[in-house]
Amino acid sequence: MESVIGVNLPQESYEIAIASGNLAKLGDRMMSLNLGKKVLVVSNPVIFQYYGEVAIASLKEAGFEVAQITLPAGESYKTHDSLQKIYDAALENRLERSSTMVALGGGVIGDMTGFASATWLRGINFVQVPTTLLAMVDASIGGKTGVNHPQGKNLIGAFHQPREVLIDPEVLKTLPVREFRAGIAEVIKYGIIWDAELFSQMERSQYLDCLDNLDLGLLQEILTRSCQAKADVVSKDEKEAGLRAILNYGHTIGHAVESLTEYRVVNHGEAVAIGMVAAGEIAVTLQMWDKLASERQNALIQKAGLPTALPPGLDIEAIVDALSTDKKVKAGKVRFVLPTQIGAAIVTDQVPRDVIKQVLQQMSS
Amino acid sequence: MESVIGVNLPQESYEIAIASGNLAKLGDRMMSLNLGKKVLVVSNPVIFQYYGEVAIASLKEAGFEVAQITLPAGESYKTHDSLQKIYDAALENRLERSSTMVALGGGVIGDMTGFASATWLRGINFVQVPTTLLAMVDASIGGKTGVNHPQGKNLIGAFHQPREVLIDPEVLKTLPVREFRAGIAEVIKYGIIWDAELFSQMERSQYLDCLDNLDLGLLQEILTRSCQAKADVVSKDEKEAGLRAILNYGHTIGHAVESLTEYRVVNHGEAVAIGMVAAGEIAVTLQMWDKLASERQNALIQKAGLPTALPPGLDIEAIVDALSTDKKVKAGKVRFVLPTQIGAAIVTDQVPRDVIKQVLQQMSS
Ligand SMILES: NC(=O)c1ccc[n+]([C@@H]2O[C@H](COP(=O)([O-])OP(=O)(O)OC[C@H]3O[C@@H](n4cnc5c(N)ncnc54)[C@H](O)[C@@H]3O)[C@@H](O)[C@H]2O)c1
Ligand SMILES: NC(=O)c1ccc[n+]([C@@H]2O[C@H](COP(=O)([O-])OP(=O)(O)OC[C@H]3O[C@@H](n4cnc5c(N)ncnc54)[C@H](O)[C@@H]3O)[C@@H](O)[C@H]2O)c1
Ligand SMILES: [Zn+2]
Ligand SMILES: [Zn+2]
Repeated sequence: MESVIGVNLPQESYEIAIASGNLAKLGDRMMSLNLGKKVLVVSNPVIFQYYGEVAIASLKEAGFEVAQITLPAGESYKTHDSLQKIYDAALENRLERSSTMVALGGGVIGDMTGFASATWLRGINFVQVPTTLLAMVDASIGGKTGVNHPQGKNLIGAFHQPREVLIDPEVLKTLPVREFRAGIAEVIKYGIIWDAELFSQMERSQYLDCLDNLDLGLLQEILTRSCQAKADVVSKDEKEAGLRAILNYGHTIGHAVESLTEYRVVNHGEAVAIGMVAAGEIAVTLQMWDKLASERQNALIQKAGLPTALPPGLDIEAIVDALSTDKKVKAGKVRFVLPTQIGAAIVTDQVPRDVIKQVLQQMSS
Repeated sequence: MESVIGVNLPQESYEIAIASGNLAKLGDRMMSLNLGKKVLVVSNPVIFQYYGEVAIASLKEAGFEVAQITLPAGESYKTHDSLQKIYDAALENRLERSSTMVALGGGVIGDMTGFASATWLRGINFVQVPTTLLAMVDASIGGKTGVNHPQGKNLIGAFHQPREVLIDPEVLKTLPVREFRAGIAEVIKYGIIWDAELFSQMERSQYLDCLDNLDLGLLQEILTRSCQAKADVVSKDEKEAGLRAILNYGHTIGHAVESLTEYRVVNHGEAVAIGMVAAGEIAVTLQMWDKLASERQNALIQKAGLPTALPPGLDIEAIVDALSTDKKVKAGKVRFVLPTQIGAAIVTDQVPRDVIKQVLQQMSS
């Protein structure tokens, strides 16, 4: 099974190639992109240990001059210090404007490598080889790159499109199950906001909670349809003028929950799952969405082994306050993405504070 | 006298407004750009002392919420540390995506503020108020932004276009004469590579070595024609695919001279002057340019109080070696911009090493 999705942007277009065994074809595929000889592969030690050798052998065989650097794993290393290390490696290996940085890793490696490639010599080539489900269906597509500021996530960044996204589903075999589920949360999101058929396909599967229980055909559908959904949305709105906002479905309350629990209790996907349940309930309360549809959503979230209730001990008032400090807040108004049917959503800043509180109270455990 | 030049780029267009008294109109002009309420003015203590008050009063009067930050003056502060201070001020003042950073200063402030605005929240609005001649005619136009890496100038950066460039020639009155001449070097460059009429107008002026000796009409012509030249070139080649390379006239050898003397002996404009003399001689030697034209160029450089000989003690061999480590070097070939007539130039990587050495030897003092 092989899918290729085109991301068509006014200035630059690229392909997302999805197929088992793609990792070993990295060099070949990059050959056809007309890049310079030098490549810097950026990864972390865990991922590099599993997949570094295959990737590098493939690049060398295709004639590239390859250097590599690994950075410590984890969100807490998505910092300016790590960025500096990538710059130093770029300098040491004398990368030129025609050279390429390859991100071999999850969203953390992808975001940092993307930002380094966006800003080294004011922009060099960049190829994404995502190794988490979340990075495959979300982080690697759309050109958002960045690092964290000590006081906030992703405050520093740039838009920089990759020249290619290469997805090899095989690498998911080593991904911890909790990370897998975090990715599934974003896939469910695409089902709700964009692709009703994707939603139904997941509904029809008996299991959704780990890779081993997944039919290979369904996995390929999940990857292809999710990438297509993200590609559709970003090509219609490259720089976040409007439509792209629907990708934040589940993220308004999700971000508040993540940050109030200091990124320690729930991971991003779990927070998004909770946020989708909340947004769904809000939409139902405002009579924009069927109760039945929201129940189907919540059942799917549960089948994926994701939470549907707030973590214990969270103060509702604090969540509501946190909403208005989110960086996406425009002139003090909190923006919600609310589903109108399975497969469609709208953006609104007209949700009464009372409704938010009432829904969150119902979700307290 | 007032000129407005349009810079027309595929994605974003903006105006360069040149007129005495513009500084006091900053707020008014920005009002018409449809920007958010919050503005962060970035400057250095010297410049802020002269012009901060007028700029800020004008912004406040137009209804903007204004914050300010000053960074230490000088190229040695064009660093990640200064950038961090801008980010901190952005955070403290809660700049949003619709907010604006205003660079009130020379190229150093402009480049850093531009990069900060390019990367804060993945890009916010940016307005240039250049206060040196060099920043007016060169650094503020074209969207190149960046900071230095400990091991090299401008290695880290991004393309980010300003929403407006506002030039008030009055501020040049306080500019040190050596800085003024550095700007004139770039103006002479435009005369050679693009605008023969600009060249002739300067030739006709009795003096060119300091502001006080300059006719006000000529100053306005110098500013307008130089900005127009840069705007023409960058709009035809926003991301440096080809044509923009001609802006590096005088810069190939200029950069080598600057860096070999550790940026202490000659300033940028002086280095470019030396580089233009060298490139002119190379073009004459290769029979691409008239001896007479090159003599006219060198006379103009001298009239501007700029050097035409290498600084004493520089090793010719070292200069030639330095050329090939320049970041603009593609696959080891050194690229030269060579004039073919006054007002036109070409780019070539076919200059024999012998010719470079011979010309530099003639220029040794
Ligand atoms: N740029 C975007 O548009 C965008 C979108 C969503 C998220 N993000 C960013 O992505 C980041 C989260 O990405 P993530 O969820 O991929 O987390 P991650 O990159 O931290 O990876 C999660 C963990 O899985 C490990 N891992 C990765 N691939 C593996 C594999 N194949 N086998 C075994 N272990 C593996 C990693 O070492 C890490 O410990 C966040 O920083 C977020 O801000 C960016
Ligand atoms: N982005 C671009 O396209 C581009 C192009 C050319 C140069 N540059 C960059 O520009 C920088 C050089 O810029 P510059 O020559 O303007 O130097 P600068 O910004 O360092 O200013 C020179 C000096 O003049 C002082 N000064 C500025 N305006 C003044 C005024 N009106 N009155 C009194 N003093 C004043 C400053 O405090 C400083 O000490 C370099 O970092 C270079 O890399 C960028
Ligand atoms: Zn997400
Ligand atoms: Zn210059």
